[in-house]
Amino acid sequence: MSRFFLRTLRDDPADAEVPSHRLLVRGGYVRRVAPGIYSWLPLGLRVLARVEQIVREEMDAMGAQEVRFPALLPREPYEVTNRWTEYGANVFRLQDRRGNDMMLGPTHEEFFTLLVKDLYSSYKDLPLNLYQIQTKYRDEARPRAGILRGREFVMKDAYSFDIDDAGLEASYQAYREAYVRIFDRLGFEYVIVHADSGAMGGSASEEFLAVAETGEDTFVRSAGGYAANVEAVTTVVPDPLPYDDLPAAHAEQTPETPTIETLVNHLNVAFPRDDRAWEAADTLKNVLVVLRHPDGTREPLAIGIPGDRDVDVRRLEAHVSPAEVEVFTDDDFSAHPDLAKGYIGPGVLGEQKSTGIRYLVDPRVVTGTRWVTGADVDGSHVIDLVAGRDFTPDGTIEAAEVRAGDAAPDGSGPLELERGIEMGHIFQLGRMYAEKLGLQVLDENGKLVTVTMGSYGVGVSRAVAAVVENSHDEIGIVWPREIAPFDVHLVATGKDDAVFDAADALVAELEAAGIDVLYDDRRKVSPGVKFKDAELLGMPTIVVVGKGLADGVVEVRDRATGERSDVPVAEAVENVRAVCR
Amino acid sequence: MSRFFLRTLRDDPADAEVPSHRLLVRGGYVRRVAPGIYSWLPLGLRVLARVEQIVREEMDAMGAQEVRFPALLPREPYEVTNRWTEYGANVFRLQDRRGNDMMLGPTHEEFFTLLVKDLYSSYKDLPLNLYQIQTKYRDEARPRAGILRGREFVMKDAYSFDIDDAGLEASYQAYREAYVRIFDRLGFEYVIVHADSGAMGGSASEEFLAVAETGEDTFVRSAGGYAANVEAVTTVVPDPLPYDDLPAAHAEQTPETPTIETLVNHLNVAFPRDDRAWEAADTLKNVLVVLRHPDGTREPLAIGIPGDRDVDVRRLEAHVSPAEVEVFTDDDFSAHPDLAKGYIGPGVLGEQKSTGIRYLVDPRVVTGTRWVTGADVDGSHVIDLVAGRDFTPDGTIEAAEVRAGDAAPDGSGPLELERGIEMGHIFQLGRMYAEKLGLQVLDENGKLVTVTMGSYGVGVSRAVAAVVENSHDEIGIVWPREIAPFDVHLVATGKDDAVFDAADALVAELEAAGIDVLYDDRRKVSPGVKFKDAELLGMPTIVVVGKGLADGVVEVRDRATGERSDVPVAEAVENVRAVCR
Repeated sequence: MSRFFLRTLRDDPADAEVPSHRLLVRGGYVRRVAPGIYSWLPLGLRVLARVEQIVREEMDAMGAQEVRFPALLPREPYEVTNRWTEYGANVFRLQDRRGNDMMLGPTHEEFFTLLVKDLYSSYKDLPLNLYQIQTKYRDEARPRAGILRGREFVMKDAYSFDIDDAGLEASYQAYREAYVRIFDRLGFEYVIVHADSGAMGGSASEEFLAVAETGEDTFVRSAGGYAANVEAVTTVVPDPLPYDDLPAAHAEQTPETPTIETLVNHLNVAFPRDDRAWEAADTLKNVLVVLRHPDGTREPLAIGIPGDRDVDVRRLEAHVSPAEVEVFTDDDFSAHPDLAKGYIGPGVLGEQKSTGIRYLVDPRVVTGTRWVTGADVDGSHVIDLVAGRDFTPDGTIEAAEVRAGDAAPDGSGPLELERGIEMGHIFQLGRMYAEKLGLQVLDENGKLVTVTMGSYGVGVSRAVAAVVENSHDEIGIVWPREIAPFDVHLVATGKDDAVFDAADALVAELEAAGIDVLYDDRRKVSPGVKFKDAELLGMPTIVVVGKGLADGVVEVRDRATGERSDVPVAEAVENVRAVCR
Repeated sequence: MSRFFLRTLRDDPADAEVPSHRLLVRGGYVRRVAPGIYSWLPLGLRVLARVEQIVREEMDAMGAQEVRFPALLPREPYEVTNRWTEYGANVFRLQDRRGNDMMLGPTHEEFFTLLVKDLYSSYKDLPLNLYQIQTKYRDEARPRAGILRGREFVMKDAYSFDIDDAGLEASYQAYREAYVRIFDRLGFEYVIVHADSGAMGGSASEEFLAVAETGEDTFVRSAGGYAANVEAVTTVVPDPLPYDDLPAAHAEQTPETPTIETLVNHLNVAFPRDDRAWEAADTLKNVLVVLRHPDGTREPLAIGIPGDRDVDVRRLEAHVSPAEVEVFTDDDFSAHPDLAKGYIGPGVLGEQKSTGIRYLVDPRVVTGTRWVTGADVDGSHVIDLVAGRDFTPDGTIEAAEVRAGDAAPDGSGPLELERGIEMGHIFQLGRMYAEKLGLQVLDENGKLVTVTMGSYGVGVSRAVAAVVENSHDEIGIVWPREIAPFDVHLVATGKDDAVFDAADALVAELEAAGIDVLYDDRRKVSPGVKFKDAELLGMPTIVVVGKGLADGVVEVRDRATGERSDVPVAEAVENVRAVCR
């Protein structure tokens, strides 16, 4: 450590919101260059290399072949798939000196597809699995949390190429199993969830999430084994109800009730029910947003959801992608004078209604359900408005928040909500890219067939942070053995030359035994500071060579458990080796 | 090879000008994505990884520590050193979604300087050596020759930090020695030449050039051991001559002599010399160019050189950098009516003369030399114009071409000209970056001193191509053992199962012995095609398992020499191992 390019910091970085960011910067693993853009210092680069190695080994073991594409990519292939436009502001774009449009690749589906098209032409060449470990770019609107959500990051992306659906399914399973091995080796708690396919097109899709309170992704799971990210959760749709005996809808004066809360209070005072009190769930809340499509056009959208739930913007976005969701502004209200702010109802909503605004409702709003909702007149609501009798929306949308206790769609019980970090994503793309880019091969009968593809990502640099999120305590990082930058942190204490001589010898022996040692050989640093550094940096085993030498022992500490034991010097190498392997 | 992602191509790529480009594309090592931007296929990536490993090992061995900076970099640090402007059109620039200017880094001096400033503060921390192996970007005006001159490429860049000049000198020597080891291991012929420092600022500088006819760089060497790239060659300046006895200058009619050739012919007819014929070397040619400075301003420049030489634009550019050289246009002539095209002379050139155009001459134009040159009147030249008597230029410039036979500046004999590929560059930057960016540390006396730096680059991806330039024949690549993607290319021929069974077994044994084998196990491919592939791909050893099996032998071929020998099957592993190690 007297020569190692490393300085630990006493203070948390000002912008650090999560433990991994705080600890990786303080421990001298990474250093910020610009928002969401970090340098890897020697210690961090060692961890990154170990993660890369695990990923590479498991990809190679399943028969995937490594290639490396450029990060700087021409526009044309993205045009064919329309993603040049769809990516919107989320990618870095530039022009070269000749004015050619280029992109810093966030993902490489188009280029892998074209490469295989270029070189392969027969079913005999398939299945084929290619991968790369490569620096990728995404111009995040909100880069945060250090390397957890950066704008330049390392990813492993892999792609499968198969002749038919059964082949794709088999490839998908092979990646799924490889991912289980990868994430088991990385050593953090993770969960595999059903995933929404989002902007990528395609069908079956699962995410590997590191379970972490600080995670940006919400996922659900049931005791019965269902797990999904919140975007992918489908609502259990109730059966339609008979409505022949229901009273007719009637508009009522409900002055100054523009919110669900004021409305429910007013209902319970002015129109008390016989059976029970009015609840927010009896009301139908109509939320207006604007969709901005990739071509720049704006489309207003009305969403009807039970009044006891809010719109979950991420769920909404997942279902309207590649459109982005924007605020419905005062100008938009002015453009639609039939909208009575605070009292909007199905009377004016829908493509066939006076506003012409598309009206999608929560799947729970089935035929026969009755609602209190806006009467499209200021200070007035309609009561006993029955879906399928009094109004017919343009369709349904999964935009309402998912809540703990909601039913799992597979009937496996109530859902719990948790948070996680997306670490891997496996994805049956199907034939979308191959069709658009013309990737066909001859089948057994000499007929051209379109190849079906999967894509499979692992956040490599993100994994470094995810491990820390999962494995740290108040004083520092606790590296799992398989990705620790060093096996052992050896601290020599005191001022006695004999101590440093003994430590030098022990380090040499440990290294000869194949153990990586971070050796704190600093002479003028106090034991307290050295121990603090060792705890912050987080090597799994700490060996202390110091006062114990007088009694012929060194101390071996386990960073995770805090356990300490005195080991005779002569047995130290064997002891440490046994602990490390 | 039946499953390996590889297709060799029969035809040369249309844009291939040099052997490495041709062979690496045909051999399925790399594949073009856009001009100067390539993908690495599995075979190519293996070579690249081997080169990286050699570089990493030698850097680690000399005590340099590996880090990794981002490729996407903010503008601000480049502003401080003025390189944001100086890079001109040669870098990729972009803006992020917030409108911040960013650059794809071509080199990282600023960021290494800032990082060390950030973490270090004492002379005790020095010397420090940091390096990275990283993807870099340069928006080349003329990307060419495949990966030899790409726009996205892999470089190792290292930086040394020392407290004083002696330290820098020692660091520089340590890198120089490490580079010798690196280039020895890479296995191509190279030469170390004095280099012009170009745009980088700083002083001592050497380049490691791979000797190659196809190289873009011209260098010189003398039998006595002098070697320099052509930009760095300094002209041996003759002593001033006495001019008291020289005749006065006299303008003469020389109609229709706008070129040196027509002028010399005319002189020999109309004004024959007594002692010898007029030669081009007796004339002073005045060449006009325009310098475009980084801030966009254009400055005309006149260059006077002996008429038997041309201006070497690369030498000129090296000496006017960071300005770029542009053509002096008809518009420029119109703006300077005193310039008589074809008959321009010192009469109107110079900052104090009527045109005001700065006038720099070749160092050979010393006081007392006499010249025939333009009289600034159409159809007229001045004879016996004596430098220092009749005209005084604004200075000298090393812009004339260097020619074989010119004297080496160190007196070591006449120069020969050769061509090479720049593979490495070592460079004593000095204190320029540290001063501009404020990198200071406390010295032994507690005084702040500015750190002195060196920078040291190796073209890692370029090395793959340079090796091929140096090591190929008409039928394919001939990899040096240390960077070959596989040690052995094993070809099984025929249709006999027994052959493939024997080959399978041999491959397994070779791999068990730690030998990397590319196994051509394709059943329906003819031996001729397989041998062609093996020769094109270029593994150093080719093992043929086929007809010889009946006699209990396999054939072992040396790709470089073409030597073949039959080896008993039982001895094959031992034989191949001996050959490979």
